[in-house]
Amino acid sequence: MQKQIQQQDLDQAMIDRHYLLEAITLATKGYGAVSPNPYVGAILVKEGEVIGRGYHQYAGGAHAEVNALQDALDKGHQLEGSTLYVTLEPCCFRGKTGACTDLILKSGIARVVTAMEDPNPAVAGKGHQILQDAGIEVVTHLLLDEGEKLIEVFSHNQRHKKIFVTLKAALSLDGKLATKHRDSQWITGEAARKRAHYYRGLHDLILIGKGTLLVDNPSLTVRYGYKTPAPTRLLMLNDFSGITTDVITQYHFFNTDLAPSLILYDQKNPPDEKIASLLQAQGVQLSALAEITPEAVMEYTFNAGFMSLFIEGGAAIYDAFINADCVDQYLLFYGPKLIGSPQALELWHSSPIEQLQDAPLVTIESVELLEESFLTVARRRR
Amino acid sequence: MQKQIQQQDLDQAMIDRHYLLEAITLATKGYGAVSPNPYVGAILVKEGEVIGRGYHQYAGGAHAEVNALQDALDKGHQLEGSTLYVTLEPCCFRGKTGACTDLILKSGIARVVTAMEDPNPAVAGKGHQILQDAGIEVVTHLLLDEGEKLIEVFSHNQRHKKIFVTLKAALSLDGKLATKHRDSQWITGEAARKRAHYYRGLHDLILIGKGTLLVDNPSLTVRYGYKTPAPTRLLMLNDFSGITTDVITQYHFFNTDLAPSLILYDQKNPPDEKIASLLQAQGVQLSALAEITPEAVMEYTFNAGFMSLFIEGGAAIYDAFINADCVDQYLLFYGPKLIGSPQALELWHSSPIEQLQDAPLVTIESVELLEESFLTVARRRR
Repeated sequence: MQKQIQQQDLDQAMIDRHYLLEAITLATKGYGAVSPNPYVGAILVKEGEVIGRGYHQYAGGAHAEVNALQDALDKGHQLEGSTLYVTLEPCCFRGKTGACTDLILKSGIARVVTAMEDPNPAVAGKGHQILQDAGIEVVTHLLLDEGEKLIEVFSHNQRHKKIFVTLKAALSLDGKLATKHRDSQWITGEAARKRAHYYRGLHDLILIGKGTLLVDNPSLTVRYGYKTPAPTRLLMLNDFSGITTDVITQYHFFNTDLAPSLILYDQKNPPDEKIASLLQAQGVQLSALAEITPEAVMEYTFNAGFMSLFIEGGAAIYDAFINADCVDQYLLFYGPKLIGSPQALELWHSSPIEQLQDAPLVTIESVELLEESFLTVARRRR
Repeated sequence: MQKQIQQQDLDQAMIDRHYLLEAITLATKGYGAVSPNPYVGAILVKEGEVIGRGYHQYAGGAHAEVNALQDALDKGHQLEGSTLYVTLEPCCFRGKTGACTDLILKSGIARVVTAMEDPNPAVAGKGHQILQDAGIEVVTHLLLDEGEKLIEVFSHNQRHKKIFVTLKAALSLDGKLATKHRDSQWITGEAARKRAHYYRGLHDLILIGKGTLLVDNPSLTVRYGYKTPAPTRLLMLNDFSGITTDVITQYHFFNTDLAPSLILYDQKNPPDEKIASLLQAQGVQLSALAEITPEAVMEYTFNAGFMSLFIEGGAAIYDAFINADCVDQYLLFYGPKLIGSPQALELWHSSPIEQLQDAPLVTIESVELLEESFLTVARRRR
């Protein structure tokens, strides 16, 4: 279809949607690798033929537009009169790379089709304007929903100046995390756990609390064949009780060959000399905060350049983040079991909700059967 | 496709599946109307043409095979050499209607294709055998899963000699029935409630407890445009406290113009004279049981000819049926809210489960987004 499209036979908007969708798909090749930048894909089309493709591959690397133009030039194409499909408005500022608008203006590209404006306030429509003022035809807000979805984390960062928070939990059908004896392995099946690893790989930080560290000794790496870079592992600690020499030398979290590790702790309860030195020797990063709350952890990590936080538990961490209304996205994996109450472990055990109208609302974006379990993706409605 | 199938050009099994699937679809026209019989559909095909169609329309009415043969004869067709597609093995006993095997033998039908044997021990393969012995080609176990699904309630009745029990509940994402103040209207949305009415219509009995009766005053009728017959409404009562003259004259449950009503109560706590007479005057059926347990209610209702029980709550009824492990199918509607614990109303509030290996297992058959909510259909795995 790409090579033989007869433009006169088809509605232009349909052609544009076709190539822009291809650019969106291309952008997803950057999954997990471009933080703190957005995912961007670009396709260059001339006379019904794709002459160049590019996407943003890693932070500090070339922008998608640059890669697409270079690809076309490498293949010996002339760019004059071509159309550039790019998932996000081209940048108009000179950052680590030159401004993409400059490059486009020099290239002879005649049309630019994008899904959306850049939510970065330094661009926010200026890129489109520069192109239009120079006589280039600009079409935008095509496939806007898909474009927004692609860079939802980046947009959230830009618009709210906050890290994007995903809460992932495995629940019984009646919403329990574990039995009264904290027995939770496994409520869901292999396919659900595999999918959780996929989502891990899309996040910058994987958060656990002390209970999960000591009970489960999780490695928090991305396995099951996913090739996304290892996210940084984050431990929230009120104090260092239980974080012994043995734990530090034996538990996966402290093996920084697996992935980077970061501990945020309450400055009122610092580790003793010996523990601090051992952690540093292991390559674990340590930072003291004035208080260990969801808000403080979110602020610190966002300022440290992390875009997204993936909460893996346990119950105390879930409870703290839901109570503080700090969860943006819920990934709830339900397994084929009933656990019942009253003594089971709960997702939100200190809820103050008395009336239904006060219950936090979400938008359920999808439900999907994953072998014996299922996944619900829900977004906090604010 | 039906009229022009060139049999020599297609694989016979594919043709057979095609017509048998049509017969299964036809059978569903009997939904809600044939209790205590199974849903059955039949298609008669001769020389690549459908010459007759029939399904079991109501209890006591003609069997699907009889209706299909009659349809063909009414249209002036000769039956000799035709193939009968019927979702269930034809009966070989003379019940309210003559044996279908006799009719088939007399008709000149050359082939009979069915999905499955009749789970009724009075047939259980004998119908197929009689046909085969008389020289008719019999093919069975085609589309077996679909055939089993169609008559799952009937099969359950026949195989276990028990009523089929469905538990329907509306839950928050974290599995709560209501807030601590019993606020539950509405956790799910309109599309979920509509679907619940659809399922009501497929059941013979709709069960509630006293709490739901007094708090919600539900009518328990099938609305939202579904045309299935009104199921009988069932109230399980330990005693008649709170069932006052006002309640009886004003609450929908006691208005038997809407649908039949049945009360099963503990024989140790009968209603007083006045209440009993009023109930009888309203047309409410009353039966005393030695004890009011899920098992006793199931036994009574099955012996009274009901095939299926649809549990609508409230919490005490859910708890009793899950505790007694009497639920065969769960229809769980999840709404886009979090309620949290510890004081919310729970689906299974007196669960004894301590280890995950003891948690009741289900098979999740489907998950489906219903506007802002979703539905999970799960079957108890035994």
